[in-house]
This record gives sequence, structure tokens and C-alpha cells, in this order.
Amino acid sequence: MAEPLCDLVLDRVFRKARTFNSFTDRPVDEATLRALHELWKWGPTSTNQQPLRVVWCVSDAAKSTLAALCAPGNAKKVLDAPVSAVLGMETNFVHYLPRVFPHTDARGWYGDNRRLIEESAFRNSSLQAAYFIIAARLLGLDTNPMSGFDEEKVNEAFFAGTTSRVNFITTLGYGDPATLYPRGPRLEFEETNLIR
Amino acid sequence: MAEPLCDLVLDRVFRKARTFNSFTDRPVDEATLRALHELWKWGPTSTNQQPLRVVWCVSDAAKSTLAALCAPGNAKKVLDAPVSAVLGMETNFVHYLPRVFPHTDARGWYGDNRRLIEESAFRNSSLQAAYFIIAARLLGLDTNPMSGFDEEKVNEAFFAGTTSRVNFITTLGYGDPATLYPRGPRLEFEETNLIR
Repeated sequence: MAEPLCDLVLDRVFRKARTFNSFTDRPVDEATLRALHELWKWGPTSTNQQPLRVVWCVSDAAKSTLAALCAPGNAKKVLDAPVSAVLGMETNFVHYLPRVFPHTDARGWYGDNRRLIEESAFRNSSLQAAYFIIAARLLGLDTNPMSGFDEEKVNEAFFAGTTSRVNFITTLGYGDPATLYPRGPRLEFEETNLIR
Repeated sequence: MAEPLCDLVLDRVFRKARTFNSFTDRPVDEATLRALHELWKWGPTSTNQQPLRVVWCVSDAAKSTLAALCAPGNAKKVLDAPVSAVLGMETNFVHYLPRVFPHTDARGWYGDNRRLIEESAFRNSSLQAAYFIIAARLLGLDTNPMSGFDEEKVNEAFFAGTTSRVNFITTLGYGDPATLYPRGPRLEFEETNLIR
């Protein structure tokens, strides 16, 4: 497994991939949501904690509920997309450790250190959210991750009575290239990397 | 770009990819570190903020400095790997916004809201760290991301006098399959996804 993949793959995943503001009419069915999970679930997390929780807004009712809690520009995107998703983090991931990290009891590594637990759930659900974005690209889908929404109200509407809470939201579909803006510039190697 | 990529790609990126505790002797040169950046830099971040900062520990001196600040098991991994990296976040990403997000002045969206800025830097550097892990896999490399280190001392040793600080660390190289453990189980679709 030690050689680089071909240009087509590097282009699809990173070099020519874009965030799409709007999508074609092509629908996204439940089998596709399950296929996505079959990919992103394998990405690595600390002590295999897997804190990402996804609430899929597929029905008009669910999309309307989410849209009503978004900034105006984002509300329209949520309503218009084939599917929208609330990407959340499970803050009680420690509960699952005996099953998902069976070779040792890692629960004591977290104990009741709330700062460590909250920070871990945030970091690792963000890693998994990136795996989610990449998994979509591998399957030919596109996303539009967004942070402009009322966090507290989204938690009430989608995670009430649970120990999960929102990280960010995204739309999902097959991107419409006609609606793309020019791509934002990236920082140079020398600005973001230091060799020691 | 709307069809799924082939099994070989899905296997390499997710389904058969692993985190490696140790690596073969094959070295990792600077050209490879630059090729990695040419991939991960394209992954999306909020307002294109790109907060990830990478300090590459290539020399024995740099690896020793980092290893001395790690938990014992991790110290050995850092010393033995072809390359180790400190993955940090730039908390003054707002400075770059006029250049990287040119179509509007997004600096006011953050203002001097420190909580929002810190949270954004953490979330988006974590997304970029996941792009980094995936980019490595696309180039045939493997990683071992780790959180067991003294955060404050790593900041002093690698980010003193800057507005950056550590998120987590990783090793990088060509994985040695002989040293793999059995893979940890993943949570089921029904445990982590809800369709509404």
C-alpha cells in the first residue's frame, strides 16, 4: 500500500474538490447515507471513541425545523438541499469504551475530568466530520459545512434528553457546478509548516 | 464527478486503512512533506481560515525534544518514526482573512469574541488534521496520531513567541504491517445516525 494513488483520486478528494452552495435535483437515498457511514466510521479517533452523531434531516419537517434555527443564507441552503445533517458529538463516549477499545479499560484515562472529556469529544467529532466530508467526495457527493445557526436551539431541537450536542451542520447532495464561486487562495507551505 | 470511486481507493482511504504503531526503515523526505501539504491545504475550513500549523520534527534533536515531553509509550514512537509532527492551531487566523476570504471582510464576524475564535481554531485545525491523515494515506503513507503529551511544555518548546498552540501530535512513515494489533470495532449505523 506504499505508492501514491493516481491524479484522478487526488483531484476528486482534494485538488479539484469544492464546497457547493447548491445541488442538482438528483436525490440522495437512505442506502447512500448508510454507504457513507460504512466509510467514515473507519477513520481513526483517540481510544476509538467515535463521538460523531449524525441527525439526518430528510423530511420537509426536519429540514424546516433546522432551517428555522439557521442564519438566513444558510436556512435556504438547508431547505433546498436533497439532505441536510446535524453533526453532533456524544459527550458520554466513555460509556462505549469497554466495547470499542477492548484491549484495556481506558475509562480511567478520562475518569470524571470533564474538561478532557469535552475537549476529546470536540476534537474527535471534528476529525470524524472531516472523514464524513471526504467519504462524501469518494462516493461522488458534495457537502456544504456551515456554522451559522443557533447552537442552543439546535441542541434543544435535535439532541434534547441526550448527552450529545451539535458541532456543526452540513448539506449533502450532488453539487451543481454552475453555482460555484472562484476558489479561495490557500496559505503557502512556508506559512503553515516549519521543519526542525 | 458524481460516481463512487473504486474499491481500491475506498479500501486505501478508509476500509482497510490502519493506524500504525511502527514503520519500516523507508525514509520520508522533504519533497514528501511538501506533497502532503499540496493535498491537505485544499480541504475546506470555515471562512477558509486554515488554522493548522505543522512543526515537522525531522532532526534527532527535534524528535528528542518532543519525545521528552511525551508519555513513555509515545516517546519511543516519536523517536523511532521517520518523521514526527506537532499539529497546532493558529489562534490569530483572523489576520489572514482579507487575503484568504477576499469576497467579503469576515474579520468582523469574529471581532474580539475569544470564545468563538478559540473554538473555531480548534474545530478547523482538527478538520485539517483529519485531511492531513487522509492525505498521508493517499500518498501511501501512514500516521499514528497521539494525545499523550504535556501540552503546556510542547507549546513552550514548539510555539513559544507565537499565537499558535498544539492540538495533537503524530508520527509519519510507511507502516510496518507486522506490528499491527487487531482492529477495534466500530459503532453501528443505528447507534450513530438518526433519520428524521
